[in-house]
Amino acid sequence: MASNPVTGQPGSVGLVTTRLVELFNDGQTLTLDCGATLAPVRVAYETYGTLDADRSNAVLVCHALSGTAHAAGYHQADDRRQGWWDDYIGPNKPFDTNKFFIICSNNLGGCDGTTGPSSIDPATGKPFGLRFPMITLGDMVRLQKALLDHLNIPRLVAAVGGSMGGMLSLQWALDYPERVKACVLIGSTPRLSAQNIAFNAVARQAILSDPNFNGGDHYDGERPEKGLALARMMAHITYLSEQGLHEKFGRRLQDREELSFGFENDFAVESYLQHQGSSFVKRFDANTYLYITKAMDYFDPFPDPETTARRLKPVTARFLVMSFDTDWRFDPSRSKEIVRILNWNRKQVTYQEFSSPHGHDAFLLEAPQYKESLTAFFNRLHKDHCARASQAA
Amino acid sequence: MASNPVTGQPGSVGLVTTRLVELFNDGQTLTLDCGATLAPVRVAYETYGTLDADRSNAVLVCHALSGTAHAAGYHQADDRRQGWWDDYIGPNKPFDTNKFFIICSNNLGGCDGTTGPSSIDPATGKPFGLRFPMITLGDMVRLQKALLDHLNIPRLVAAVGGSMGGMLSLQWALDYPERVKACVLIGSTPRLSAQNIAFNAVARQAILSDPNFNGGDHYDGERPEKGLALARMMAHITYLSEQGLHEKFGRRLQDREELSFGFENDFAVESYLQHQGSSFVKRFDANTYLYITKAMDYFDPFPDPETTARRLKPVTARFLVMSFDTDWRFDPSRSKEIVRILNWNRKQVTYQEFSSPHGHDAFLLEAPQYKESLTAFFNRLHKDHCARASQAA
Repeated sequence: MASNPVTGQPGSVGLVTTRLVELFNDGQTLTLDCGATLAPVRVAYETYGTLDADRSNAVLVCHALSGTAHAAGYHQADDRRQGWWDDYIGPNKPFDTNKFFIICSNNLGGCDGTTGPSSIDPATGKPFGLRFPMITLGDMVRLQKALLDHLNIPRLVAAVGGSMGGMLSLQWALDYPERVKACVLIGSTPRLSAQNIAFNAVARQAILSDPNFNGGDHYDGERPEKGLALARMMAHITYLSEQGLHEKFGRRLQDREELSFGFENDFAVESYLQHQGSSFVKRFDANTYLYITKAMDYFDPFPDPETTARRLKPVTARFLVMSFDTDWRFDPSRSKEIVRILNWNRKQVTYQEFSSPHGHDAFLLEAPQYKESLTAFFNRLHKDHCARASQAA
Repeated sequence: MASNPVTGQPGSVGLVTTRLVELFNDGQTLTLDCGATLAPVRVAYETYGTLDADRSNAVLVCHALSGTAHAAGYHQADDRRQGWWDDYIGPNKPFDTNKFFIICSNNLGGCDGTTGPSSIDPATGKPFGLRFPMITLGDMVRLQKALLDHLNIPRLVAAVGGSMGGMLSLQWALDYPERVKACVLIGSTPRLSAQNIAFNAVARQAILSDPNFNGGDHYDGERPEKGLALARMMAHITYLSEQGLHEKFGRRLQDREELSFGFENDFAVESYLQHQGSSFVKRFDANTYLYITKAMDYFDPFPDPETTARRLKPVTARFLVMSFDTDWRFDPSRSKEIVRILNWNRKQVTYQEFSSPHGHDAFLLEAPQYKESLTAFFNRLHKDHCARASQAA
């Protein structure tokens, strides 16, 4: 093993645990945009760093479609993989745990501990399945806000996320303007395009038409793994760039010298995708995939100039919008659209575009300039935060 | 009805029939690149225009993945749709039936009349299914050449096609250099990229994992329609441009005023895709989809400079290479790669890029500049052809 997280790898938050908290168990309910209510609601979350005395140094990291609460560190000393954003969260990393208290919670509707379609419906004692109510990104943020209330954290230094995580962080600034000082959107979009919806729709069809789907009630028997794997494989192509795929695989054959002249995998890219699909189904719930993709499809906070102006009016957060040149799922023009909307409504916004061969996934991966820019932005936030604290003292 | 094809719509070839011919029924066999042989082999084809006295005015139109022999005109007077390239084939159209004798045949491995996996295997009296041998684009061209021999057509004025049709037309120039005077490749590529193969691989997985697939033996019972529909829906997204989808559908809802907050189709683009999938499965064979996508994956005539130089050495055809700016399945850089290879090997090549919102499908659709350029190129071919004829006389 190259390093031992327990004895300390530089920059690692080390061993962490996912905590579970049950909210809305006191007679209150979580009221959703669709009108339905949920109670109780369990939330899985992790924190890194130390909350300061006046509880004012919290940063909320919002995860994307298939993310989890486990954003940094290790769950066990012999874990081979760290949390999904470990390159960016830790001591002296951009989201510096020497300065900030980082929170990451599994989204509502998820399958990593937070209440979702695979959770037990208290009304029936069985998993919700498709009886789980339809959720929106607004609902996810409403639950995150309830978690912050539970943790007694009145304000966030920043809400930050990539892809759908960026959409959630925007939703934060819109729904709780008084509670977010900064908002970071990376490789994100103000809404899904027809092409984005189309890919989501085919992914859902793959799940819905799997014979094991069984109307969503597949927790006791065979799961719709083939459909979910297809959904993931297709989506995965859209997370990578053409260039990245070419550099990584090209037309290289997999474990063979010559073409098979059969229907096994010939090319390395085929085996890679199949591996992506089969490892995904081990950790992810098909119903969650349906709910979260639909929530993404529905996200559209700026449908017209009047609504946009009204929604942005109370917003005081400063925005950092970042994109990657080879991202074609949410390409840079989508980020620029967010910037245009914010500028037009006289919000404070910085935009940066980075070069990377990694497409949509770039926000998760090492990229020096991107890392430096995030670090600089959060250092500035920290300086402002310290200045305010000394003024107050 | 807007027009009657029988009484004559201007520019229409009118009523046509698909002809069937059985080749390799005389003791000869079609020997394939994989080493297997087929005999007999049926070919479905259509012709438009008149073959001139010295049998020298033939143009071969090669169809793409899901095309058919029915490239122009109507099969019945009340047909609502013409052949797939009717905008470009007919009197005074780019492939002018007043000047040329146009031939289009269903590709080997197809499901529109030519021998393919759904055909009866003479050895067993049952459909081939996956016992059909693996085929290549070279094999498809070899069968087209046998058809031309049968029709007693020694040389082609041009082989022409879009997408895989362009790859076939390139294969013609390479395999039968003495028989092709010109070669037209539209929205094509010298080889599939890792991303192209990835999309094909997921499409095949969708078919192979359909429970009705039954190892390819699905001709007697339920067909793997869900898998094939998924494959088509996904591929269809790649045929259209992001911009085209946006202009056509945007985030418009389908037959509803508000979001459903359920898993039916909300957006028009979802319904459109589902329609594409369900109409495709009525006319297409899942096994053919497997064979043809694999043949595309395998196509790679220029794997290295030495092979390229050797293969291009005897080629005398002049090339016309065309692309469309919003095509992202085979984007213009892929066409330019063909041009670079041809230039480097001192072949006569013209390249043109057109603007269109229609992505990969643009080659099938009306586009004035593209049409004019094709017309000009074929007028020049006709002029040269007439000059040669009068010299010979």
